[in-house]
Amino acid sequence: MGVEPVGSSSETAAQDDGVWMSACSFTIFTMTSGFGLLECGRVSAKDEVNVMVKNVVDMIFGGLAYWVAGFGLTFGSYAEWSNPFVGVGDFFFDPERNDTANFNEKGLSYTMFIFQMSFATTTSTIVSAGMAERIHLKSHCFISFFITLVHAVSGHWVWAREGIFRRIGVIDSAGCSCVHLVGGVSGLVATLYLKPRRHRFGSNGNKNISDPTKAILGFFMLWWGWVAFNTASNYAVSHKQWTEGTRSAVATIMASAGGGIVTVVISRVTMRKIEIDMLIDGMLASLVSTTAGCLFYTPWQAIAVGSIGSAAALSIYPLTEWAHIDDPVGIIPVHVVGSFWGMIAPSIFLNKDYGLDTNQVTNDMQLNGLLYGGGFTLLGLQTLAACVIALWSAVCSFVILYTLQHSPIGLRISKYDEELGADLREHGLSGQNIQSYRVEKKITAQQ
Amino acid sequence: MGVEPVGSSSETAAQDDGVWMSACSFTIFTMTSGFGLLECGRVSAKDEVNVMVKNVVDMIFGGLAYWVAGFGLTFGSYAEWSNPFVGVGDFFFDPERNDTANFNEKGLSYTMFIFQMSFATTTSTIVSAGMAERIHLKSHCFISFFITLVHAVSGHWVWAREGIFRRIGVIDSAGCSCVHLVGGVSGLVATLYLKPRRHRFGSNGNKNISDPTKAILGFFMLWWGWVAFNTASNYAVSHKQWTEGTRSAVATIMASAGGGIVTVVISRVTMRKIEIDMLIDGMLASLVSTTAGCLFYTPWQAIAVGSIGSAAALSIYPLTEWAHIDDPVGIIPVHVVGSFWGMIAPSIFLNKDYGLDTNQVTNDMQLNGLLYGGGFTLLGLQTLAACVIALWSAVCSFVILYTLQHSPIGLRISKYDEELGADLREHGLSGQNIQSYRVEKKITAQQ
Amino acid sequence: MGVEPVGSSSETAAQDDGVWMSACSFTIFTMTSGFGLLECGRVSAKDEVNVMVKNVVDMIFGGLAYWVAGFGLTFGSYAEWSNPFVGVGDFFFDPERNDTANFNEKGLSYTMFIFQMSFATTTSTIVSAGMAERIHLKSHCFISFFITLVHAVSGHWVWAREGIFRRIGVIDSAGCSCVHLVGGVSGLVATLYLKPRRHRFGSNGNKNISDPTKAILGFFMLWWGWVAFNTASNYAVSHKQWTEGTRSAVATIMASAGGGIVTVVISRVTMRKIEIDMLIDGMLASLVSTTAGCLFYTPWQAIAVGSIGSAAALSIYPLTEWAHIDDPVGIIPVHVVGSFWGMIAPSIFLNKDYGLDTNQVTNDMQLNGLLYGGGFTLLGLQTLAACVIALWSAVCSFVILYTLQHSPIGLRISKYDEELGADLREHGLSGQNIQSYRVEKKITAQQ
Repeated sequence: MGVEPVGSSSETAAQDDGVWMSACSFTIFTMTSGFGLLECGRVSAKDEVNVMVKNVVDMIFGGLAYWVAGFGLTFGSYAEWSNPFVGVGDFFFDPERNDTANFNEKGLSYTMFIFQMSFATTTSTIVSAGMAERIHLKSHCFISFFITLVHAVSGHWVWAREGIFRRIGVIDSAGCSCVHLVGGVSGLVATLYLKPRRHRFGSNGNKNISDPTKAILGFFMLWWGWVAFNTASNYAVSHKQWTEGTRSAVATIMASAGGGIVTVVISRVTMRKIEIDMLIDGMLASLVSTTAGCLFYTPWQAIAVGSIGSAAALSIYPLTEWAHIDDPVGIIPVHVVGSFWGMIAPSIFLNKDYGLDTNQVTNDMQLNGLLYGGGFTLLGLQTLAACVIALWSAVCSFVILYTLQHSPIGLRISKYDEELGADLREHGLSGQNIQSYRVEKKITAQQ
Repeated sequence: MGVEPVGSSSETAAQDDGVWMSACSFTIFTMTSGFGLLECGRVSAKDEVNVMVKNVVDMIFGGLAYWVAGFGLTFGSYAEWSNPFVGVGDFFFDPERNDTANFNEKGLSYTMFIFQMSFATTTSTIVSAGMAERIHLKSHCFISFFITLVHAVSGHWVWAREGIFRRIGVIDSAGCSCVHLVGGVSGLVATLYLKPRRHRFGSNGNKNISDPTKAILGFFMLWWGWVAFNTASNYAVSHKQWTEGTRSAVATIMASAGGGIVTVVISRVTMRKIEIDMLIDGMLASLVSTTAGCLFYTPWQAIAVGSIGSAAALSIYPLTEWAHIDDPVGIIPVHVVGSFWGMIAPSIFLNKDYGLDTNQVTNDMQLNGLLYGGGFTLLGLQTLAACVIALWSAVCSFVILYTLQHSPIGLRISKYDEELGADLREHGLSGQNIQSYRVEKKITAQQ
Repeated sequence: MGVEPVGSSSETAAQDDGVWMSACSFTIFTMTSGFGLLECGRVSAKDEVNVMVKNVVDMIFGGLAYWVAGFGLTFGSYAEWSNPFVGVGDFFFDPERNDTANFNEKGLSYTMFIFQMSFATTTSTIVSAGMAERIHLKSHCFISFFITLVHAVSGHWVWAREGIFRRIGVIDSAGCSCVHLVGGVSGLVATLYLKPRRHRFGSNGNKNISDPTKAILGFFMLWWGWVAFNTASNYAVSHKQWTEGTRSAVATIMASAGGGIVTVVISRVTMRKIEIDMLIDGMLASLVSTTAGCLFYTPWQAIAVGSIGSAAALSIYPLTEWAHIDDPVGIIPVHVVGSFWGMIAPSIFLNKDYGLDTNQVTNDMQLNGLLYGGGFTLLGLQTLAACVIALWSAVCSFVILYTLQHSPIGLRISKYDEELGADLREHGLSGQNIQSYRVEKKITAQQ
């Protein structure tokens, strides 16, 4: 195995790290349902159930892809094939094949698998949001499968010990680039490729949403899952690494508090109300912003990172609206803008003294950010990684979408099906969910 | 105490095991709400709230029953009464009565209680699904109480060190037989006894369901809870047992991925759509399938076990429909078929080398399955246990139902009440939930 | 840092305690969404979304307040300013400023912060329930901020080592007084100050509720969160303190089982049905009842404490109805009555032999309750603390409300806005949630 939490040399350390990562992966899996609710609450009522099903399917096909090849592409390491570009080995993951491994090594290997799988399946759920209401469920299954592999390759670059970006010093503890940026950019490409939903733009265009309460509940579930997501991103609690983890938990919450206040203010000032879409997207952007450097941020830094993330995300709103980019669940502000800023942020705020000597998962090169005398090195590295990974996922997702569209499977549903709604067409549910809201702008003017 | 996680000889081991099992029990309790949502989303809108209340009541009366006698019937062990058939002792559970126990022993005893209680209350929620929309809430309270005790006795057989099935080598780590089979068979008996809901079958019969999104959310909650449920089923993390636990977590997820793909394919081929009922039932069946041998399955084995479980479960669908068995939440495919296969599966796939020497909770006899040269011994044992426990729960649940029906408490609600719905009759909620779906078959034909 | 879990002298103990408290805080954060659902399911459909947003806002502004000053007011301890009345120090919380602290100390400090913050933000969500449907969202933000500080000061009294009440021997492990009583009394003052919702009382008055299923789901989320909340309230697992924690978990569940049965019986006898409001409030009151002495109660004691708590809470129902106090989510029975009884209960049931020598977080004075020969000392202390803290929060919340009302920010929304509903006015959501229930009393008479 190429994977090996640092502190786990001793018996106790292996147990402690293994138990902690397993427990956190249980919580991280809940984020899939959170994302399902977030998404289904923000699409039309006629597609609500379909969106939940797509999030189930993401776990099924994403999970299978991760077992077949995803884990191997990120962490696989037949010694003779070790290289900075792609993991080789551990395909059709099965530690029992490895006769030389002892119980602890096998245990840690299982633990890494389930932990990383909980991250990997997150990527395809993000993409699904960009395609909501317009794509065949069967096409969606293929996309889930392949996007998981796209993530896995970029995961090798930033997470594997021999990965190209990790080796040169790029910091990305919790998958800011290989989860959120890959998901966001792929989703952006998908929504551009698929074109907007009918009736979304134009003189009579409007946003019909199914159930804002479900969306907020989903946001809540993401919020609490995120704390585990960020906290466990150093893979270990032993050898004092729990202290980094708990700092990361505080940073995550404080970033969302800072981002939340900025979001509330921006929404009040620009819309004269708290718009649900803005509230959720602003706060999620603050959380995404923390994912690269979460292990290092002190509370005030986290507040700054989150606030800037929220502000940047919400400033893109008028642009997507003007450009008629249909982004039902805000993946462009949250996952594209948020994760770009998230990658940049460590290059400003990172202080290597806040990390531990024993920690090799993050900051291997012992770099400092701009504020702590590190100069522009880290800024260059982080920007480079973000750009390369954005390009990688844009190209891959385009290839996947283009291939699917020109295959017998197809991609976009027909006009007729779109009007009927996927709940009826894909699941045979007649008599749709009547609960439904329209986002109204005029009434706020007279307030 | 008859209960004693193996590794907990030392101070640290006791702490580690106790903390882990407590933490997992917290997650397992969330499954009750998951099951509540799953169930309330799949019954008529006029009974939705009632179904949620019944799941609350399951915890109350099931919890009380477990305290009064359930824990004692499974794990109680006054040394002089120790026998293979039923636990004796620890009734009205209170470790403080035991003056000779030290803090660690008391702590582990509390931990076992809360952990096992989270399993026990699961049993009665399964039964509640079979009786949905047709039974008085007051009768339901009694059934919750007594079914918990039915579970507890069979729990002694497979889990207690002196239990008859455990002693002869039966493998059932996470309650495949004493939780799922007892729940499933009791629910089957209950639905047969109560007869179908009005308007369910016949020429104008249809399936009205309240809210498929809630059902899928409930399924998600069960899914993630299940990982903790299976992972913690060896009671310990110390002495390398965490390595079995984390293998179990991977097996659980991979079984559901395998089962999910089989389910999606079967639903597409037979119905030309992804039917929500089939999706949920197929996947839950794959999870139930893992519960006997989860600690041992490698990833490919888990995929096989889950896939076969899903296929077997869905193949029963036409039969129940043809036989006019009204099974609102699919307990027959999921909990009867799924758990029968779940009990058989270890007799094929079990490899004793994948377990640990120190583990005495599972595979005490060091048996192998068919694939690893163990011959038919384990197959015979597992089949025997499944049949005996199925018979036990069928008889007990019939006696409970018959007694209740012929008591002043009664059982089935009147026609008039059934038409009005339990939300109005039992809870005084007028003006029902308008959100409602009908499962439509015809539209799929023209696809 | 004035905060220091007792057992954490050694490396391993620090890690174990830190990891455990972090993990529990993750679960406790889920209670915010549980409370959001509980509340939004019980208000009018036209305000449902607004109520969820307010629970988001509670975390944002409460979290910020806790960072700025809350943590410092409770646990801050510049040695020279140490006093029994208020914590001083650690404002704008940042352990990295403390150059003399080692990694373990910083880690425990972060852990205490996130753990206590999860308690603190609970307080303001309770208050929000008392003001539902009647208050501007912007005013709500200010109240969240300041109530968090009101909680923080009283937290110093009962939790800090030098706090006045802790020093004299008051027992309040999980914030019965400084979380629930502060929240409940402040909410009571708020609902009195704001006056009832329109159409709530009077000849045509009625209770329109949005979605009882959501309310029950929210209750479930609180229920499972509560187990972590109570279990972790001794801050540690090392040095056998996990044994107290797991006893606390059992006590929490058993109290709710006992309280649940009392609630079901009272509701059946008085209303001839299981009223959803009563069911939820009765059970929540049983949980609140455990929060002061949870670490000490044996199972039968917990059942007694929970049962009495539920009975006391529900006996207040006719009074609030008669007095035309509009309490949409039952904070008076649950958080005022429940927490008063919760503070009294240890003075009856506490047995110091059930605690550990090493535990300094609870029962420092080694007192016994009435049943164990401790006399009336503890009763006096607990009553005193409850009365002082109730008075403190009443005065503070009145000052906050009065100040806000007479500021340009204002407090109560206009008649016109109340009729329209906050979802439209504050969030621009037109076409409201159609799903809606009315609580009907007459139909039950003919049963």
